[in-house]
Amino acid sequence: MLAKKVVLAYSGGLDTSVAIKWLQDQGYSVVACCLDVGEGKDLGFVKEKALKIGAVASYVLDVKEEFAQEYALTALQSHAFYEGKYPLVSALSRPLISKKLVEVAEEEGAVAVAHGCTGKGNDQVRFEVSIKALNPDLEVLAPVREWKWSREEEINYAQENNIPIPINLDSPFSIDQNLWGRSNECGVLEDPWAAPPEEAYDLTASLEKTPDTPDVIEIEFEKGTPIALNGKALSLAQLILELNDLAGKHGVGRIDHVENRLVGIKSREIYECPAAVTLIKAHKELEDITLVKEVAHFKPIIEKKMTELIYEGLWFSPLRDGLSAFLNSTQKYVTGTVRVKLFKGHAIIEGRKSPYSLYNEKLATYTSEDEFDHAAAVGFINLWGLPTKVQSMVQGKKVTV
Amino acid sequence: MLAKKVVLAYSGGLDTSVAIKWLQDQGYSVVACCLDVGEGKDLGFVKEKALKIGAVASYVLDVKEEFAQEYALTALQSHAFYEGKYPLVSALSRPLISKKLVEVAEEEGAVAVAHGCTGKGNDQVRFEVSIKALNPDLEVLAPVREWKWSREEEINYAQENNIPIPINLDSPFSIDQNLWGRSNECGVLEDPWAAPPEEAYDLTASLEKTPDTPDVIEIEFEKGTPIALNGKALSLAQLILELNDLAGKHGVGRIDHVENRLVGIKSREIYECPAAVTLIKAHKELEDITLVKEVAHFKPIIEKKMTELIYEGLWFSPLRDGLSAFLNSTQKYVTGTVRVKLFKGHAIIEGRKSPYSLYNEKLATYTSEDEFDHAAAVGFINLWGLPTKVQSMVQGKKVTV
Amino acid sequence: MLAKKVVLAYSGGLDTSVAIKWLQDQGYSVVACCLDVGEGKDLGFVKEKALKIGAVASYVLDVKEEFAQEYALTALQSHAFYEGKYPLVSALSRPLISKKLVEVAEEEGAVAVAHGCTGKGNDQVRFEVSIKALNPDLEVLAPVREWKWSREEEINYAQENNIPIPINLDSPFSIDQNLWGRSNECGVLEDPWAAPPEEAYDLTASLEKTPDTPDVIEIEFEKGTPIALNGKALSLAQLILELNDLAGKHGVGRIDHVENRLVGIKSREIYECPAAVTLIKAHKELEDITLVKEVAHFKPIIEKKMTELIYEGLWFSPLRDGLSAFLNSTQKYVTGTVRVKLFKGHAIIEGRKSPYSLYNEKLATYTSEDEFDHAAAVGFINLWGLPTKVQSMVQGKKVTV
Amino acid sequence: MLAKKVVLAYSGGLDTSVAIKWLQDQGYSVVACCLDVGEGKDLGFVKEKALKIGAVASYVLDVKEEFAQEYALTALQSHAFYEGKYPLVSALSRPLISKKLVEVAEEEGAVAVAHGCTGKGNDQVRFEVSIKALNPDLEVLAPVREWKWSREEEINYAQENNIPIPINLDSPFSIDQNLWGRSNECGVLEDPWAAPPEEAYDLTASLEKTPDTPDVIEIEFEKGTPIALNGKALSLAQLILELNDLAGKHGVGRIDHVENRLVGIKSREIYECPAAVTLIKAHKELEDITLVKEVAHFKPIIEKKMTELIYEGLWFSPLRDGLSAFLNSTQKYVTGTVRVKLFKGHAIIEGRKSPYSLYNEKLATYTSEDEFDHAAAVGFINLWGLPTKVQSMVQGKKVTV
Repeated sequence: MLAKKVVLAYSGGLDTSVAIKWLQDQGYSVVACCLDVGEGKDLGFVKEKALKIGAVASYVLDVKEEFAQEYALTALQSHAFYEGKYPLVSALSRPLISKKLVEVAEEEGAVAVAHGCTGKGNDQVRFEVSIKALNPDLEVLAPVREWKWSREEEINYAQENNIPIPINLDSPFSIDQNLWGRSNECGVLEDPWAAPPEEAYDLTASLEKTPDTPDVIEIEFEKGTPIALNGKALSLAQLILELNDLAGKHGVGRIDHVENRLVGIKSREIYECPAAVTLIKAHKELEDITLVKEVAHFKPIIEKKMTELIYEGLWFSPLRDGLSAFLNSTQKYVTGTVRVKLFKGHAIIEGRKSPYSLYNEKLATYTSEDEFDHAAAVGFINLWGLPTKVQSMVQGKKVTV
Repeated sequence: MLAKKVVLAYSGGLDTSVAIKWLQDQGYSVVACCLDVGEGKDLGFVKEKALKIGAVASYVLDVKEEFAQEYALTALQSHAFYEGKYPLVSALSRPLISKKLVEVAEEEGAVAVAHGCTGKGNDQVRFEVSIKALNPDLEVLAPVREWKWSREEEINYAQENNIPIPINLDSPFSIDQNLWGRSNECGVLEDPWAAPPEEAYDLTASLEKTPDTPDVIEIEFEKGTPIALNGKALSLAQLILELNDLAGKHGVGRIDHVENRLVGIKSREIYECPAAVTLIKAHKELEDITLVKEVAHFKPIIEKKMTELIYEGLWFSPLRDGLSAFLNSTQKYVTGTVRVKLFKGHAIIEGRKSPYSLYNEKLATYTSEDEFDHAAAVGFINLWGLPTKVQSMVQGKKVTV
Repeated sequence: MLAKKVVLAYSGGLDTSVAIKWLQDQGYSVVACCLDVGEGKDLGFVKEKALKIGAVASYVLDVKEEFAQEYALTALQSHAFYEGKYPLVSALSRPLISKKLVEVAEEEGAVAVAHGCTGKGNDQVRFEVSIKALNPDLEVLAPVREWKWSREEEINYAQENNIPIPINLDSPFSIDQNLWGRSNECGVLEDPWAAPPEEAYDLTASLEKTPDTPDVIEIEFEKGTPIALNGKALSLAQLILELNDLAGKHGVGRIDHVENRLVGIKSREIYECPAAVTLIKAHKELEDITLVKEVAHFKPIIEKKMTELIYEGLWFSPLRDGLSAFLNSTQKYVTGTVRVKLFKGHAIIEGRKSPYSLYNEKLATYTSEDEFDHAAAVGFINLWGLPTKVQSMVQGKKVTV
Repeated sequence: MLAKKVVLAYSGGLDTSVAIKWLQDQGYSVVACCLDVGEGKDLGFVKEKALKIGAVASYVLDVKEEFAQEYALTALQSHAFYEGKYPLVSALSRPLISKKLVEVAEEEGAVAVAHGCTGKGNDQVRFEVSIKALNPDLEVLAPVREWKWSREEEINYAQENNIPIPINLDSPFSIDQNLWGRSNECGVLEDPWAAPPEEAYDLTASLEKTPDTPDVIEIEFEKGTPIALNGKALSLAQLILELNDLAGKHGVGRIDHVENRLVGIKSREIYECPAAVTLIKAHKELEDITLVKEVAHFKPIIEKKMTELIYEGLWFSPLRDGLSAFLNSTQKYVTGTVRVKLFKGHAIIEGRKSPYSLYNEKLATYTSEDEFDHAAAVGFINLWGLPTKVQSMVQGKKVTV
């Protein structure tokens, strides 16, 4: 009889390498699946490593453009900062990875899907809820959560089974990265009074080492999507990766956040998101001139819900469809150019223009060009303040002396 | 017969100086009233000037501490940035000025109150709605809105009436300032593609001229109120003014905003708020470790409403009482210390600590100290994802091949 | 020279009849335009009357189906009750009437559009904002607001100009009606302590006179749209009109509301909306079984905004496009049948079923069929309650004795 | 050695009676604790029964007034209907019961608290989260969830242990009741297409059997609290109980709801809440005349959050403190009298009056008494519609022919 198959989300690291063997011990044949979401590692090496350890097949899928166009773009247009700070780095890649795992599982005739998360993070929730939403019949396995080994026990098992031990095993950090950014937790970061050490960062220069000359760039948007950088048309994934370099060099996008996890605890995380931070700022400024007031004031409610929903692993909920439908509707005229000065950790918006700009100099000006109807204000104030005035008369804010 | 009295909000500038005479022309005797909200101008001079022009009395009231404790503090604890950017500089002082004008009017037996706003700004709304809420019987006059003079006509009138013309009359800028910040509009700023010229700024150094050595400061909060700077206890007004200097020197708090005014137009404004920006960032970080998740996730809804309500001139609405009651309730444990690095335009939070911190290293850690119940996650995910799973089974996200 | 043309929203009543002459006095030639939105009056008579008084053309347009499909349906799917009570009767028809007036004005080459509203209601705002959104070049005239006549003066003018005086001129009520309902204000209703007199109602039987035998009906929905009544397929307008009769006979849909108008005052209104109330209740019940929890809990926020936006005259704002996009997305599986018992003023939902029902008896049951994983609850509760527990431990709800 | 003590929430029914013995089997000595929240059962009998079965102590606590004043009143002022329908019957009593169990446990020196909930309902969450919030050191036991017996096995165990079997054991319903209402689930109700059978109801008359003569009552409120019924001052608990009788007789307050449980499933429930429904309607009408518009429009957001938070077992979260602080602030002027006609299942508000009414006949009237400034509307509309107009001009809703 053939062993039942499991598709494992494979990163090449120790945990998922050990998981290949462990899953075999449980009677599965293992298909490894590694996704390139812009992390920038050696994927050929990862592919081979899985096969060497014993995977019956090893997929490496380049999904950078799909990730950019469908996931990062949603975060960008939502100005997504969880709790005002975290731009949803890992939370964005989990649903896409889940989708690809399910697709591979269905092609391969697998009965299960496995991920390498522990029992206290958000990512286990995001993987499992996404997979169940996409194919409720697939079993989901979580080897690392199940084996309950100490670090030592895991290393012993790896050595006994000839699984290569990574050389950076002593790194105090736990990293996840994709083109929308890089997250880092653990070790010395666990004390929220301590400043993060410089070695916690990788994508961004420290302020002390940033250039003394700014780069001034222009980002062009069409219907809310960045399409060109300094006049050069780029695919969204390319644009984000280039901007990561450019803005990272100037130290843009460092974030130090004590956040509320989905599983009920607070944790302290360090993020680096040079492109994400720059693009969200630029996009917001373009919206400031192209969205009518009532849209500009209601959209943040949609943004907040979208952000929390993605953070909480509900990407494949019908609620996201509704929120996305709203979002898309608002981007129709978010077309134009934003000029950004990258300097000393800042992405300073210096100028914004659009053929659809609602900023009207003739209404806004205080010069003789003024076309605003000043007399209208009297009637407006009269009615605007009427409820408060009546309230004061009846319910008496004050006792007249 | 005695002339009926009007109390005029007097700034010492051309508009309100001319207004003294103009109101006299309308048959009023004018009481000038100038409030010190931290703008830092020569108040003795202002007081005398009003009398010279013809005011029957001239008040100068120092309300800096009241402004800090009741108005700026509300904005701070609300993390108030209108449309994500504007920290409510003028919008905060208008209700306090209105309150003082009404008090003086009641003491002086005046029948009216006057302000110097034009017909297209927000401030006319804030003044008039506030005054009507505080004393619906007082008439409100708006000389500048009523006389409809061109700049030239106004200057002619001033010269004819021996009203001193300020020397900086050619300034292209229209400034308002208090201890929470400084706003600037008009002139070259009316083109949103143009970067603001350096002379538009006054409280903050340009990035190019900031020191190459950071200042690292500690801000101490008690129940959400800043009480000490670098270990030195200060009144809130003093603390804000000192921090304006300190953070301003490092270029912190420049804001360039195209905003939606209450009166239906978009306008472009430049703000400088060194202390406000630093304090709000620090306060948010302290909340991040002391507020429980569900409070942290709902408070932004209160903050947004509070911010819009203040912007829209409804400070004296009963709705603010309700929002403030919510806000106060959340500040009970927002006590602790935040360490901030002021450098190159940034207020970087390096550390935060509190005797009431809900960040629990033993729950958060990935070391052997871990006290989190990993097994609980399985049940949690099972129920958390159940609705999406059933939805997928019934309403079929996908067609199984 | 030809007189410039104005298109007047014409109802056949005294105000708009007088307006024809008054507009002629101002030098306009008047095109009357009467829309059939389901009010049920004699449109041939109205058409002729306008011509007799002096209109150069008289349009009567049947827009019942367009009104039902685009306006009433939006209100239905939004469960729109302004301030929890008012189902947006007049507020829904104003944008459609505006749209038709603009279309006729453009066809006729008119320079202006006129409506018959006074200066203190909501409808003037809805008309003028809608018309300006659709064609900012058209002037908007409001004869009744401008002429400032007393009732007597108006009648004198009518008599002098041979304008027929309606026989029910002494009616103490001011009525507006369309297929979504009937509104009534004024007269004795101005005392909110007084119960509305029976003659204030027209579409609904008084409870005392309703049949002692219920009607049990079935309403079929497809993607959120009612498509059949008791198995009979009907256009939406027909279905609503039939249901008005049926539910009205049983006294369903009387509403007595003291509401906050857009122009700053409270007013007391009586509404009758038999079909609207019945359909919204039925639709909500179908959503209860077909929407996943997170959609069901967020949709009310969209509904509230949609309702307020329509009430406030912003139908043609881009914000409505966004809200509608969200709404449409939620209706995909709102397909099924609802059984309603019409009896003694109630529309009681007795049963609901759908091929897409997410109600799962095997999960919900307490019988031996139960497929719910009871053990999962332990882990769920553990993490669900963790923040509150940590908060209690640190910030101490209680002092242990 | 003395057995460790557990305090059991005891109802007198089969489950908790069996739990006494089962807990003894686990080595505990059991303190039974029954709370009178207005269910109206024979508490002397319940108290004795616990002792007979083997409890070492048996408490019966009358907490009706505390329940009314602190829990029901919060629900009333929040107009709390979960998902628009469920007035939080059981969800309200759970936190109070938890509080009393913890108090008894602390007095008795118990180490644990036990409840009789199964693993798929909401109440287990509410109990356990509340108890952990109040005293994180107490263990929480859930015998019924743990023993995993079938109904037969439970009855066998009861018979073997001489535990009396209730005579209504065959009832297909699972009931919970307190003075705010009665809930009923299970059995035939599990089919959402079936109408609930008449025997599912107990507090309310069927429409067919309600009197043909209405009762018209007056309810007096002071600062949002009902204080008198028909002129007779009553404690809140008394008032609610009397109103349950009065309104129940007229069939008011039947609710049939398919709801989303906290644990991820939909369930169908029948509620009867005569007093709750009547009081919430009356209170809302009083707010309609006493709350200023901006409070009336924001309060529903607080209400929705409060309702969901209580439903989800987070009564003791600091978030409730904040929401309650907002709520209290709004009730300051909710003083006055509401006249209600109870008839054929309806609580019809016929009139409302208040010394603090903001309804102003002189502003609202269309008679010659009118004091509203009609001219102000022109300016108001001009600015109100300006953003939409500019948007239309620039972004072109239409192409002019």
